[in-house]
Amino acid sequence: MSWEDSVRRVTPYVPGEQPKVEGELIKLNTNEFPYPPSPAAQEAVRNSDIASLRLYPDPFCDPLRSELAKHHGLSPKQVFVGVGSDDVLSMAFLTFFYSDKPVLFADITYSFYDVWADVYRIPYELKPLDENLRIRKEDYLCDNGGIVIANPNAPTGISVSGDISVIEEIVRANRDSVVIIDEAYVDFGGVSALPLIDRYDNLLIVRTFSKSRAFAGMRIGYAMGNEKLIGYMNDVKFSVNSYTLNRPAIDYGVAVLKDEEYFKDTVAKVIKTREWTGKALSDLGFSVTDSKTNFVFASHRETDAEYIFERLKEKKIYVRHFKQPRIRNYLRISVGTDDEMKRLMEELKRILP
Amino acid sequence: MSWEDSVRRVTPYVPGEQPKVEGELIKLNTNEFPYPPSPAAQEAVRNSDIASLRLYPDPFCDPLRSELAKHHGLSPKQVFVGVGSDDVLSMAFLTFFYSDKPVLFADITYSFYDVWADVYRIPYELKPLDENLRIRKEDYLCDNGGIVIANPNAPTGISVSGDISVIEEIVRANRDSVVIIDEAYVDFGGVSALPLIDRYDNLLIVRTFSKSRAFAGMRIGYAMGNEKLIGYMNDVKFSVNSYTLNRPAIDYGVAVLKDEEYFKDTVAKVIKTREWTGKALSDLGFSVTDSKTNFVFASHRETDAEYIFERLKEKKIYVRHFKQPRIRNYLRISVGTDDEMKRLMEELKRILP
Repeated sequence: MSWEDSVRRVTPYVPGEQPKVEGELIKLNTNEFPYPPSPAAQEAVRNSDIASLRLYPDPFCDPLRSELAKHHGLSPKQVFVGVGSDDVLSMAFLTFFYSDKPVLFADITYSFYDVWADVYRIPYELKPLDENLRIRKEDYLCDNGGIVIANPNAPTGISVSGDISVIEEIVRANRDSVVIIDEAYVDFGGVSALPLIDRYDNLLIVRTFSKSRAFAGMRIGYAMGNEKLIGYMNDVKFSVNSYTLNRPAIDYGVAVLKDEEYFKDTVAKVIKTREWTGKALSDLGFSVTDSKTNFVFASHRETDAEYIFERLKEKKIYVRHFKQPRIRNYLRISVGTDDEMKRLMEELKRILP
Repeated sequence: MSWEDSVRRVTPYVPGEQPKVEGELIKLNTNEFPYPPSPAAQEAVRNSDIASLRLYPDPFCDPLRSELAKHHGLSPKQVFVGVGSDDVLSMAFLTFFYSDKPVLFADITYSFYDVWADVYRIPYELKPLDENLRIRKEDYLCDNGGIVIANPNAPTGISVSGDISVIEEIVRANRDSVVIIDEAYVDFGGVSALPLIDRYDNLLIVRTFSKSRAFAGMRIGYAMGNEKLIGYMNDVKFSVNSYTLNRPAIDYGVAVLKDEEYFKDTVAKVIKTREWTGKALSDLGFSVTDSKTNFVFASHRETDAEYIFERLKEKKIYVRHFKQPRIRNYLRISVGTDDEMKRLMEELKRILP
């Protein structure tokens, strides 16, 4: 007998490498935004009230919830905020998936879902994407303990459909369980389920500042749903950590959210670069999915993905490769600046036969 | 049947009020530090690299872990960091208390312990403090699934003993379970169990920047223990949220930790004010515990604590009152500046008969 017998053993999520190599590198492996945050963030940093850091932050993060509510046309009570969308999703799993029935999600999707299920001992069932890496609606029309759909999906980049009808059908068919739509990438061309939240009390939408707001380093995520749903999440959050977002996160979050123009301009640039990248990769012999995100998901017709991954790494270009059998011949490449994508293409031309 | 049947229902922890009243108020209810953070924090804010906020922070928080390790004479692998000590404690509960045996802690202690036990469905047993509000060592020498002791304790302010012998006896007698010593307040005169961590692999020590480092608003907490213990905590942390501390928290945390002189000077001032406060309250007819923290715990011999609490609140002086039967006639009063404590005494003189 030892204290180790009572340890919760888990296989943790492995995030993309945060390389510490010296010198110039091109980091296209964790879907960070290629441009700096809005200049409004600079202003917020300049206005920092350092003396106030001795005081706890607002445990409800009300300034940020209010600004988000205003931004999305909701009431602040319909908004939950957390330390990145990972914290928000983790709280949602802990709060809503508390039955013996399996939670459903795709076999190829954000690889944190099964990790949360494991750590919280939540039963789950993987639903295989079809041969075109699309979800099959029918898979989500059976008895279950909850549903999680990333839309657009990662790492495929693919959106469920051109409108919200499929998502609505799934949400409507599952009024007895909570349906989480993870919209981390929605700003890059996806279709949001947001218009549905006033009609369906079992729908939770999760977003992040880490991608389209260029704020991965600030750790801000949020969820939107009806007041009751958000209330339950807050109860659990207050049973884990009362004060999650620190003062800078709340202040800077409010600031960048107000700068709609910068947001739209830079997101448009990323989309344009993504389209160029997809085309350039196709010209080099890659099949590329129809991405609605800030990354592309590409498989070369002749050359092995892991080989390309390793060669790029030698050149200090970091992309993401997954070892799951179904996608082991794909690379997930974050959309960087135009210059970075051009450098990538030059290297690929040297690597490919 | 409804999705609400599968919701994890909890009675959340209720933090001290964060009053939003206008005008001057004296806030002595959440044990915040009365002085601003070290000027090193200002320097760190000025040096903020805003462009880097587009990138994820270091998921291991290595710069901060290294600085903490250096500070305490440990290896970085013996240090875990989280979003305040609440996050660290919550992770420790989730990681180490995974058996059917009850976890033991005092009936009067930090009121978050039973909340974490509830949310993670951990069995626990309360061990009543003795009539002088001290822990009884014998209570912790039986079979158990883990032990948590706040030393010094909150809200009593009382330290376990003048040296580490009692803590060591408890740790030694429980090699089959993890013993957590919550040292949130240790810098104000407590005795740390830190010298024991190399001898006992079942000992975890938890600290925070929220009290003595004047950084409640930044949310930084940490734990120290042997590498194996810290490794298990990191596995669970990486199963919940890979990136917890944001970039400012890591950077500013490193900065304030380096300013040992400011830390010592301001902590000494708080201790001096605490001693003055205890004496002044005694003169007004209060019994005051022997506090080794940045608060005093006081009970008036004639006047009801809740009555005093309400009268002070009317005067915009916020202290903390707990409704638990054994301590309902006590007030927990954070140590403010000398001026704030003088204002408090003036008001108390008016309130008391």
